[in-house]
Amino acid sequence: MSAGFRHQHLLSIADLNQVDVNQILDAAELFIEVSRRPVRKVPTLRGKTVINMFFEASTRTRTSFELAGKRLSADVVNISSSGSSVSKGESLLDTCKTLGAMRPDLVVIRHPASGATQFVAKHIGCSVINGGDGAHEHPTQALLDAFAIRKTFGTLSGLKVAICGDITHSRVARSNAALLKLFGSEVRFCAPYTLMPSHVETLGVKVFHQLEPALEGVDVIMLLRIQSERLEGPLLPSMREYARKFGVSQRHIELASPRAIVMHPGPMNRGVEIHTALADSDRSVILDQVEAGVAVRMAVLYLLAKDIRAQTPTQAATDAS
Amino acid sequence: MSAGFRHQHLLSIADLNQVDVNQILDAAELFIEVSRRPVRKVPTLRGKTVINMFFEASTRTRTSFELAGKRLSADVVNISSSGSSVSKGESLLDTCKTLGAMRPDLVVIRHPASGATQFVAKHIGCSVINGGDGAHEHPTQALLDAFAIRKTFGTLSGLKVAICGDITHSRVARSNAALLKLFGSEVRFCAPYTLMPSHVETLGVKVFHQLEPALEGVDVIMLLRIQSERLEGPLLPSMREYARKFGVSQRHIELASPRAIVMHPGPMNRGVEIHTALADSDRSVILDQVEAGVAVRMAVLYLLAKDIRAQTPTQAATDAS
Amino acid sequence: MSAGFRHQHLLSIADLNQVDVNQILDAAELFIEVSRRPVRKVPTLRGKTVINMFFEASTRTRTSFELAGKRLSADVVNISSSGSSVSKGESLLDTCKTLGAMRPDLVVIRHPASGATQFVAKHIGCSVINGGDGAHEHPTQALLDAFAIRKTFGTLSGLKVAICGDITHSRVARSNAALLKLFGSEVRFCAPYTLMPSHVETLGVKVFHQLEPALEGVDVIMLLRIQSERLEGPLLPSMREYARKFGVSQRHIELASPRAIVMHPGPMNRGVEIHTALADSDRSVILDQVEAGVAVRMAVLYLLAKDIRAQTPTQAATDAS
Repeated sequence: MSAGFRHQHLLSIADLNQVDVNQILDAAELFIEVSRRPVRKVPTLRGKTVINMFFEASTRTRTSFELAGKRLSADVVNISSSGSSVSKGESLLDTCKTLGAMRPDLVVIRHPASGATQFVAKHIGCSVINGGDGAHEHPTQALLDAFAIRKTFGTLSGLKVAICGDITHSRVARSNAALLKLFGSEVRFCAPYTLMPSHVETLGVKVFHQLEPALEGVDVIMLLRIQSERLEGPLLPSMREYARKFGVSQRHIELASPRAIVMHPGPMNRGVEIHTALADSDRSVILDQVEAGVAVRMAVLYLLAKDIRAQTPTQAATDAS
Repeated sequence: MSAGFRHQHLLSIADLNQVDVNQILDAAELFIEVSRRPVRKVPTLRGKTVINMFFEASTRTRTSFELAGKRLSADVVNISSSGSSVSKGESLLDTCKTLGAMRPDLVVIRHPASGATQFVAKHIGCSVINGGDGAHEHPTQALLDAFAIRKTFGTLSGLKVAICGDITHSRVARSNAALLKLFGSEVRFCAPYTLMPSHVETLGVKVFHQLEPALEGVDVIMLLRIQSERLEGPLLPSMREYARKFGVSQRHIELASPRAIVMHPGPMNRGVEIHTALADSDRSVILDQVEAGVAVRMAVLYLLAKDIRAQTPTQAATDAS
Repeated sequence: MSAGFRHQHLLSIADLNQVDVNQILDAAELFIEVSRRPVRKVPTLRGKTVINMFFEASTRTRTSFELAGKRLSADVVNISSSGSSVSKGESLLDTCKTLGAMRPDLVVIRHPASGATQFVAKHIGCSVINGGDGAHEHPTQALLDAFAIRKTFGTLSGLKVAICGDITHSRVARSNAALLKLFGSEVRFCAPYTLMPSHVETLGVKVFHQLEPALEGVDVIMLLRIQSERLEGPLLPSMREYARKFGVSQRHIELASPRAIVMHPGPMNRGVEIHTALADSDRSVILDQVEAGVAVRMAVLYLLAKDIRAQTPTQAATDAS
């Protein structure tokens, strides 16, 4: 593996090529071992500052980045939009320039507006990681999903992956489709008409409006969370109706490849988009995704942090704490 | 002291025997000195991850655990229910399995449902500490109270302890009664009829509905917080009425043993369950309880953390930072 | 520089003399370099505990203190009023005594009541830093402003400084006036009649109710935030009206000294008290103020922390991490 990473930011999967993705996943392979040791910490990013700036509520992503930073010995500061200058009406640009003047090394941003992190990256003067921006991208989610897929199948190429749920509002669907297409896998989107964006075929995906044909022969079934605020809204008839037509259960697995796995970015609505027995079955890699999340984020923080690129990830991961 | 601790979790005082309690309190005796040094930190839990998961608001307990973890050099991550996946409707079990997949060493949980922490401990795959679950137990509070009592009297046996206030809703009362009965002390519960659970005598305590006989000759007067949301509710006539009949003042001290101390888990309602002059008198050990809280939680984190049991608490507390 | 600092707390600029201010600013000169290094951390406050206790929302001040503490290797714990015992009705005094019993070294307090931090300092038993109390003082803001002014002009004496905006409600105005008068600079307050306190001349400042004469020949234009909750209220006609009469733009700069700079404590209301082109012009030192904030707070934490005074700031700043 080359020690250098050619990007200053991680804003979208669309910016990455196969080499970039492999570089991140290979580093994550080393870092996943760090979290499994009795001493879950390496001194790699000692003296570096990571700011987690979350303009939307999140447990798992924020915690995952916080643990990733701390296990690399970085100083991690959390900022959420409640209790922040944002509630006083400050612009995103001014908030970010202000944070930039405090000289962080890396800023992780989650924001409800698509494109917000790209905008920030142009002005803040440090590395920016997109922690999810509107319905646009959530690149570390796609990378951790890729980690779990590659761990199962040994490759990201030549697979068939069905992504099912609220495609219209899903940055997870977009980032995963971009990454899997990059490696030449087939991506299928499956959703009710009301939750499928128009012109989605331009992403190079196959479009389905019924579960059964979408799952036919796939290697990966990736389910998306139906957000409760959308259920009972104008786009969806009812939770019961959605569960009946698009909820995936163990009987659907028979349609898929014999080695198929089931994924979900969480938090799950058990009994809605995923039946509870399936979520807990041996086909589910949902908790592996979570564990991969910390490792992938350690890898991304490591690769983007400046001045330490001379050290290889192997050295970083094997450093005594 | 034996270096090993026979429990994986700290869920309730009911699980402990005298040896367990003494082991925790003896370790706390060593750790209380750490917080009094100019350098208030030992490297004992370096590379360990502690997650504080608080589904109920708390300053003192969360801060106490956070300081305990940090003074042992652990990485500490705080999660509160607001802004978490919980507000998105995820089940407690899924939230905890998700956190478990991030490979923490210790998770502290406060939850409004009695039994929630026991439930989590069965599924999360790391050590769990009950930081207060509904009206069930708050074991670290009882342990820190025991620390303060033992410091004053040199023993936990043969004492008379009156616990006064809203017994029905108090996990503090339950945990303290269990611990003090374990050492053969006499425990008295004193509350209005509306705040005393039925069949409470099965806990082995003596039941009183008036202050004066309850305080007769006791060594410890332990007052519980009347929660303001209950005052003016159906169970209580008025704050003034409660203060008149159950508020403890310096004149009540004359009923107790000449060496009697006054305790309160905080936050206090001065002028309601405790008169302000008594709270600030030399009989009050309320701030000693707070200081003991950090030490007892350091002891619990230390004893439950895996892979370090070969090191004795003395070595841990005397390690150079 | 003398290694010792004669104060236990930093509560108000009114307590400081020229030597004190210079001691803080000189230490900050050394610490500002720490945040610019690849390894932004020194071990100076290792094993010290800093508690940030914010009873009012704040991003920049809380983050600035948190980074300052972490870059000095202190353990930093954040407490905000939401989710704290405060919401359970505990008195400020009891909250602070409780925190004090956990043996922090330094507590930073922001509180909506003027004088709250002085009150706390008398009772808590550790060093207290005023992070802003009501409309009274915000001393670290004035110190960081002084740092930016001294950096530009090489002195804090003999300057003319106009402070414009809601003087009545501004602790920033009060702290800055006190510091600048201490060094013999001329301070002008400019505000509508409704936002200027009566008897303000007793502070030794010149009072203006129109921008143009206030800015005549000044070296520093310091703008204050108009709080949106006050706009449209009884004290102000409308945002548009305020911007027209008191909003400062690049054309106003011509009234000032040729070397004049523009300052703002943030968060800015662009288009209200400051025109956006001016905020982004080369006259603006607004981001320098933010950077200075971390350095000044490192200096204050360093100087107030006990037991380390034998070490000079130069040694502290040059320590290998």
